[in-house]
Amino acid sequence: MAPTLTAFKDDLSPNLDVIQDYAKFLADSKIMGVLVNGTSGEGMSMNVEERKRVTEEWVKAVKKTNQHLMVQIGGAPLPDVLELAKHAESVGVDSLLCLPDLYNKPNTSLDLIRYLKTVGTAAPNTPLLYYHIPSYTHVHIHMGQFLNDSVGKIPTFHGIKFTSTALDEGVAAVKANGGKYAVFLGADQLMAGAYTLGFDSAIATTLNMFPQLGITILEAVKQSKLDKAKETQDILTEVCAIVTKNGPWVPTMKVAMDLYTPIKVGKAREPLINITAEHINEMKVALKTVGINN
Amino acid sequence: MAPTLTAFKDDLSPNLDVIQDYAKFLADSKIMGVLVNGTSGEGMSMNVEERKRVTEEWVKAVKKTNQHLMVQIGGAPLPDVLELAKHAESVGVDSLLCLPDLYNKPNTSLDLIRYLKTVGTAAPNTPLLYYHIPSYTHVHIHMGQFLNDSVGKIPTFHGIKFTSTALDEGVAAVKANGGKYAVFLGADQLMAGAYTLGFDSAIATTLNMFPQLGITILEAVKQSKLDKAKETQDILTEVCAIVTKNGPWVPTMKVAMDLYTPIKVGKAREPLINITAEHINEMKVALKTVGINN
Amino acid sequence: MAPTLTAFKDDLSPNLDVIQDYAKFLADSKIMGVLVNGTSGEGMSMNVEERKRVTEEWVKAVKKTNQHLMVQIGGAPLPDVLELAKHAESVGVDSLLCLPDLYNKPNTSLDLIRYLKTVGTAAPNTPLLYYHIPSYTHVHIHMGQFLNDSVGKIPTFHGIKFTSTALDEGVAAVKANGGKYAVFLGADQLMAGAYTLGFDSAIATTLNMFPQLGITILEAVKQSKLDKAKETQDILTEVCAIVTKNGPWVPTMKVAMDLYTPIKVGKAREPLINITAEHINEMKVALKTVGINN
Amino acid sequence: MAPTLTAFKDDLSPNLDVIQDYAKFLADSKIMGVLVNGTSGEGMSMNVEERKRVTEEWVKAVKKTNQHLMVQIGGAPLPDVLELAKHAESVGVDSLLCLPDLYNKPNTSLDLIRYLKTVGTAAPNTPLLYYHIPSYTHVHIHMGQFLNDSVGKIPTFHGIKFTSTALDEGVAAVKANGGKYAVFLGADQLMAGAYTLGFDSAIATTLNMFPQLGITILEAVKQSKLDKAKETQDILTEVCAIVTKNGPWVPTMKVAMDLYTPIKVGKAREPLINITAEHINEMKVALKTVGINN
Repeated sequence: MAPTLTAFKDDLSPNLDVIQDYAKFLADSKIMGVLVNGTSGEGMSMNVEERKRVTEEWVKAVKKTNQHLMVQIGGAPLPDVLELAKHAESVGVDSLLCLPDLYNKPNTSLDLIRYLKTVGTAAPNTPLLYYHIPSYTHVHIHMGQFLNDSVGKIPTFHGIKFTSTALDEGVAAVKANGGKYAVFLGADQLMAGAYTLGFDSAIATTLNMFPQLGITILEAVKQSKLDKAKETQDILTEVCAIVTKNGPWVPTMKVAMDLYTPIKVGKAREPLINITAEHINEMKVALKTVGINN
Repeated sequence: MAPTLTAFKDDLSPNLDVIQDYAKFLADSKIMGVLVNGTSGEGMSMNVEERKRVTEEWVKAVKKTNQHLMVQIGGAPLPDVLELAKHAESVGVDSLLCLPDLYNKPNTSLDLIRYLKTVGTAAPNTPLLYYHIPSYTHVHIHMGQFLNDSVGKIPTFHGIKFTSTALDEGVAAVKANGGKYAVFLGADQLMAGAYTLGFDSAIATTLNMFPQLGITILEAVKQSKLDKAKETQDILTEVCAIVTKNGPWVPTMKVAMDLYTPIKVGKAREPLINITAEHINEMKVALKTVGINN
Repeated sequence: MAPTLTAFKDDLSPNLDVIQDYAKFLADSKIMGVLVNGTSGEGMSMNVEERKRVTEEWVKAVKKTNQHLMVQIGGAPLPDVLELAKHAESVGVDSLLCLPDLYNKPNTSLDLIRYLKTVGTAAPNTPLLYYHIPSYTHVHIHMGQFLNDSVGKIPTFHGIKFTSTALDEGVAAVKANGGKYAVFLGADQLMAGAYTLGFDSAIATTLNMFPQLGITILEAVKQSKLDKAKETQDILTEVCAIVTKNGPWVPTMKVAMDLYTPIKVGKAREPLINITAEHINEMKVALKTVGINN
Repeated sequence: MAPTLTAFKDDLSPNLDVIQDYAKFLADSKIMGVLVNGTSGEGMSMNVEERKRVTEEWVKAVKKTNQHLMVQIGGAPLPDVLELAKHAESVGVDSLLCLPDLYNKPNTSLDLIRYLKTVGTAAPNTPLLYYHIPSYTHVHIHMGQFLNDSVGKIPTFHGIKFTSTALDEGVAAVKANGGKYAVFLGADQLMAGAYTLGFDSAIATTLNMFPQLGITILEAVKQSKLDKAKETQDILTEVCAIVTKNGPWVPTMKVAMDLYTPIKVGKAREPLINITAEHINEMKVALKTVGINN
């Protein structure tokens, strides 16, 4: 599943026009699920109205491509989160992903269950997933423990996105509740290892611009072709290192998207910092050395 | 300066009707400054529209009381923060307080300066202060360093609210830039010590319901009556311990407000958890032992 | 490689008598390397004299078994570390592992390089490895960065033990300096994943009492038998969860050693807390459910 | 009380010869208590034998000066800590200060109580204090809570050294157990504030080389001369900033000791880094601007 980037115009307003092509581009690359308004989608840098419009455009787009549409509705004040949840359900998204409250953070599984239950009541017919990304949220509730604690407590609860490199905790999450929850890996550099340990899916930014690498890794592991998995993972890890060498994750990945795909997503919004033309050129030159040409 | 609590009705919608009385109650207690939509005001649990309406009502109220009105406009996605800044200036607030971005957090003084500069451009004629509260934001930029770095970089920049118990850092902030920035202490339990070290003002929640204690401490330190300062601080610290014994800061302080003042602020919004009737009673009984009666 | 447990008598003095049998037991299980006086060996709970005697006994033992002998000499005041380094070289150990200074901790790669260089001068003919275990040391220097920075700076430097679950950092360490450093994984639960990502060796406590599991995982990954690797890892992870359910890692692992091998290692020293007879019984019952019988 | 610096010769072996003069110098400055082998004394960079010899020499010295002698015996493997405790009692020190175990750290009040109880049994007739210094130990047990939990649990327990700037926690420690425990502040820059909040004593490094400043602050607060207290604290805080500007606390304080007192303490041991001659000169020039001349 690809965590889509939100395209912005030169004035940094959302460019909705690219979404149909974007959906088709991913579908053509065999990416049959998309996550919208997540970290890569700069959801936390948009207001409610903008997030709704982006969501609506993706709803239209996936009608043609039959992709699964997950929308991230958290990371905003709770009244806005509830409004976004209700809206997302009303326009027919397939699933919801939700960050914890960013200010009055949950300290315990119980706090988090209560919050997700409240969010779930605003979209009672749509599967809900929790977005675990402690490097951004500083919420360190253990996902194995939380998933076991949550069983039967949140009617629409379906699983998590696990964006962390602590794979022991990730494996505990995969195994929690008898393995019945969905646990999406959010760590491009660890796919091969995580699949070997029991993960079976990822939401990884590089699936946007280098989908073949991530797909190959999953296929290779499934077919027990470990050399192929490792070799492809090595390339993907190197690609990530090169792309993000001179700036934060999202702005640099947006540059890679513009360079290596027909979909133009433009610059990232503040407070993120975009990289210089010189660094963009450096990225291109370095990616050539690992066989990636634009 | 009192960080006001936002009154909610039984349906948890903002109760704007109490604001005029609230302002007068504080003015009658010699509290001549108010902070609106901060942590105590649950600003991060309201949407943009609600924050605007609360702000507008306080603008009306302070016209009669001549209190200084500071409004916290941060802790939301940046487009909303800019909208709130612009609105606050347009309705005539006296100063702005602003949290850092809660998701794409600043790592360096430079990041924070850039963010505040952007916020400042949306309200170019209103003094802007930064809200340092690392226990909520996990932003640990050193305030002494930051204030020195910020000199001359943000046209409207005026100072900070320092909500931390690391008083060495607080003193460094007070002394930064030759002592020219405003540095408001946000730690009820440390007032006497902080005033002795160079602070000269606080934004402390207990100024809402027990204003006499905080005022007495400041007066006593100013008059070099250290025994009086220490003794009063001891009572205030004990009061804080009793009030917050069975729940989080804001919901328990709201209970104290309802019990000990004529202003009724009601319950706190989710994700905060309100305390039980039993715990409310326990609070009353314990506060009697330190001479506080309702 | 097995990080050996230090056997204590009932009076908690080191029981040197078991060491010859211990070495042979591991060698019979195809474990051809041992680490002595590490975390599992309670090196940081022994004085210099005790650590020397344990080392000497292992030197004797491995002469018969031909195992590689690595000795952990850090985690003590620097004069003691230097004395232990010198002693270890003088008695002929094969390699040294060294924690950072536990009090005046390194903040940067440079600090750490300086420390290891000093340690290395006390044993100039013995390969030296750094022991990265941030959950104990709170030293969070990035191992990929550090290894690249260290190239050519420490004459005897040979690699690290990577006891962390942050596998992205681990992979960066494996690839650092063109992959020329030894990087031993110290995370029993992640072996299958780490081997898939490029690790090729581990120092894992469970190799002491359940050597077959760890060996099978490594063999299976080498032979690209992913189902076998995953299935065995699942059992090992479950075994770790059961063993450590009611107490800290070392005392519970010592119990498992006593229960499932002929080598009796006795209780752990303070400040570690040993588990109760009731919990020992619970462990036995639970391990039976995953096919492990004593 | 002064936390003494350990003098080292050019070969970095302890220089015991200065201790008698050192004790007299402090006594002449009205410093009637000394702490030996603490952080400033580089206790964690010495072996057991060295710590014993330094202790013995101080025992001799204080016999003439009648100073209270507190010795820090922790920060080493537990067998060494017990040996140091026993030794200190046998040579007649007045009190013991003890760090937590630096490797197998306590997680709870209970863990810490158990550890201190064990240490106390090795010196059953000497008052024992706990050394709280979380910036070095990463042990964050709340001292107010811990002191209340410890009541009646450790026969020789007497109080703590509180080396932290979180004064709210410090005040809670001062008030714990009805105020019956000794709580020494370990923060030169916060003395005036801490005394106002209820502290009544400090163990502050600058009492070694600038004793008049610290003494004046305490006297001024006792006499309710707040302007004097604040003004002197401002100077002391500035002095600390200047001294430590170009290096870590201990090596820079040793330089100040050598420059401004007749006691020569020499360089700091590894892993601490000593500052350059150029930086020493810079320190001298800057201290002149605040009226300190050598």
